Amino acid sequence: MSVLIRESPYPMVSIADATAMIMERAQPLGSEEIDALTALGRVLANDITAPEDIPDVPKSAMDGYALRAGDSLAPRRVVGELTAGGPSTVTLGPGEATRIMTGAPMPPGADAMIPVEMTEERDGMLYIQRELKPGDYVHVVGQDVARGQTVLTAGTTIGAPEIGILATLGITRITAYRRPRVAVLATGDEVVEPSELRPGGAVRDSNRYTLMAAVREAGCEPISLGIARDDIAVQRQAILRGLEQADVLITSGGVSMGTRDLIKPLLAELGTVHFGRIAFKPGKPTTFATVNGKLVFGLPGFPVSSLVSFEVFVRPALRALQGDARPFRPQVTVTLGQPVRPSPDRPEYQRIIVSFQEGKLVAVTTGSQNSSRLLSLRGANGLLLVPAGDTVYPAGSTLPALLTGPLIGEGTTW
Amino acid sequence: MSVLIRESPYPMVSIADATAMIMERAQPLGSEEIDALTALGRVLANDITAPEDIPDVPKSAMDGYALRAGDSLAPRRVVGELTAGGPSTVTLGPGEATRIMTGAPMPPGADAMIPVEMTEERDGMLYIQRELKPGDYVHVVGQDVARGQTVLTAGTTIGAPEIGILATLGITRITAYRRPRVAVLATGDEVVEPSELRPGGAVRDSNRYTLMAAVREAGCEPISLGIARDDIAVQRQAILRGLEQADVLITSGGVSMGTRDLIKPLLAELGTVHFGRIAFKPGKPTTFATVNGKLVFGLPGFPVSSLVSFEVFVRPALRALQGDARPFRPQVTVTLGQPVRPSPDRPEYQRIIVSFQEGKLVAVTTGSQNSSRLLSLRGANGLLLVPAGDTVYPAGSTLPALLTGPLIGEGTTW
Repeated sequence: MSVLIRESPYPMVSIADATAMIMERAQPLGSEEIDALTALGRVLANDITAPEDIPDVPKSAMDGYALRAGDSLAPRRVVGELTAGGPSTVTLGPGEATRIMTGAPMPPGADAMIPVEMTEERDGMLYIQRELKPGDYVHVVGQDVARGQTVLTAGTTIGAPEIGILATLGITRITAYRRPRVAVLATGDEVVEPSELRPGGAVRDSNRYTLMAAVREAGCEPISLGIARDDIAVQRQAILRGLEQADVLITSGGVSMGTRDLIKPLLAELGTVHFGRIAFKPGKPTTFATVNGKLVFGLPGFPVSSLVSFEVFVRPALRALQGDARPFRPQVTVTLGQPVRPSPDRPEYQRIIVSFQEGKLVAVTTGSQNSSRLLSLRGANGLLLVPAGDTVYPAGSTLPALLTGPLIGEGTTW
Repeated sequence: MSVLIRESPYPMVSIADATAMIMERAQPLGSEEIDALTALGRVLANDITAPEDIPDVPKSAMDGYALRAGDSLAPRRVVGELTAGGPSTVTLGPGEATRIMTGAPMPPGADAMIPVEMTEERDGMLYIQRELKPGDYVHVVGQDVARGQTVLTAGTTIGAPEIGILATLGITRITAYRRPRVAVLATGDEVVEPSELRPGGAVRDSNRYTLMAAVREAGCEPISLGIARDDIAVQRQAILRGLEQADVLITSGGVSMGTRDLIKPLLAELGTVHFGRIAFKPGKPTTFATVNGKLVFGLPGFPVSSLVSFEVFVRPALRALQGDARPFRPQVTVTLGQPVRPSPDRPEYQRIIVSFQEGKLVAVTTGSQNSSRLLSLRGANGLLLVPAGDTVYPAGSTLPALLTGPLIGEGTTW
């Protein structure tokens, strides 16, 4: 019989120190040239400067007539029609106007346009009731984007609008940070595949699938390393195999103080363990190491501890590795919709549902916060940071929280 | 020369009426059986009921010793060691204890456990200083999930926690709503591919790529139909081709009142136009039709109008088509960080950046709100609903807004 360890040899670090130790080592992995128009979710590695003005020529801002403002209210002779993509053969002289469609280049000689709703046309003549100034309803050169302007900055995550900006400027290739490959390993003799017949007392591997989904949501490519049983040679080999294929390794389980908890000694053997305990609930045994410069996270085996530790410590690192200028979830202050009991010895991230009510962000917890109770993450869109202590926070008091998903809004007002 | 239309034949509908007309026709498309463990982002079509208790047997909640509470403070003889996945051969008699690791099934005869930190073990004997009650530190059957309990409901979007819940219960196949296929067609003689050399005055097609990215973000499969020039036969053919392949069709451009604006007459010819104008800025000419029961959205050609109309009117429909129980973006009330000028004639969705500051959601606009200025969408995480009017809203006043992306948070407090 092996000896039960009574105290972890790893000092307890604070959430802040753990975060700092991780983020200091989470530098962007490098960049690659990719197609800009399908780059949704990727992170720009360079600033993007506009190579030209948008629009490049003066254009009509509406459907109507191009004319000369100096002709004042006098009726004009209608001499042609200009469409956005049609030939532009008209040159306007004094007393002339031309029909013009939204987006059509302004013809030479014209200096303003008037929307069709403000006009009458009879027998080839245009009548207007309103004086115009040069430039009225004209979309001028460089109005939307000026040549040389920085339109996007490095560290920006590409969404639909950014794709539009790049397409508008004819930029079809961009340099993006590389997406981290993240290997996920489950450990434990008691752990079986979800599809397997389960002997009584065994646990189906939910953590690996949960973590792979969370890895994907964080913009990375997950790699499954399967389940390693509690054997130091088996786990060593699985870790080395993961580090060969991936930029980051996440393990699940095997970081407590039990006799089968082999991950910490293995990481100490293969690389450097930066911390092995965090003053934090749920997820005290969360471990962070580097092996040959690659980041390794040893997450606890309890499902809630695993995913909350991922959210708080691993996700920001994965975002930073891909160059995201804003790697952290937004932090807000929420008003408690119910009393909240702190943990006596450690700050705790409780799973909450945050909704907007009467001008405030109101948080209620998702029920029992037991670290084995995965249902406490169901529907959660936030993590409430509850400082350690003995005093219950009454309903109506305020605490900081991370927002991990969209808020619940008020009813629509229309 | 064709005749310039001075007034649209389509009545102007309100945002609320337009939304109601769309949502009434946006019913889920049907469902299919898929792999549960890679179902990230899919929407459940059925409630999920737990087929068994989790845990299925009583387990140790920590590393320590399993024992009989009734033995009180008497020293116990340590008779074995139980690990989570190891054989469980021990049966405890009076005066006995066994080492037990987190997650290991409790041995017959034991009714409580004590964490290792609260014990001493010397010469095969366990010493404890604290009385225990039956059940202490035991993870009881059904504590996390009770057999028969509804764990997930139809209409839930599957995230990482939901995958974990399914895996834990051994549910590896689920019924999910089908993802809509959405065809996107750009129109206009002036429109060229972003990669093409651009003749002066031409416009690169940003809308199709922007909309395809937004379609993907909304959980659907985009299909590109390319660019159709302003020819009724060409556009008719493109629309029919799109409707053959897709569940939903989105067109960009060709919905104004210009002589080349062919989309509305075409949709009226092929199906039913439910509305052709919305009292809404930017995007008044936004059109909604059904053709053979399929939804068709005619979006304006200006890039901002296109994407804002998508966000406000199309995205909720795409979420409803895939069964999302919460198809709308969250609506909140924001405090203006700067004065906001309304549009005199129509309610306007202005692009804003919403941040959490001193207990409030504070909104600032993204600069000029011109509907050709795609940069007004850059970095925006919200749409401010500004009612029509002539009076500027001063800084500090409040207005409703849709949140389209994560909030900007406060600095971290740790």
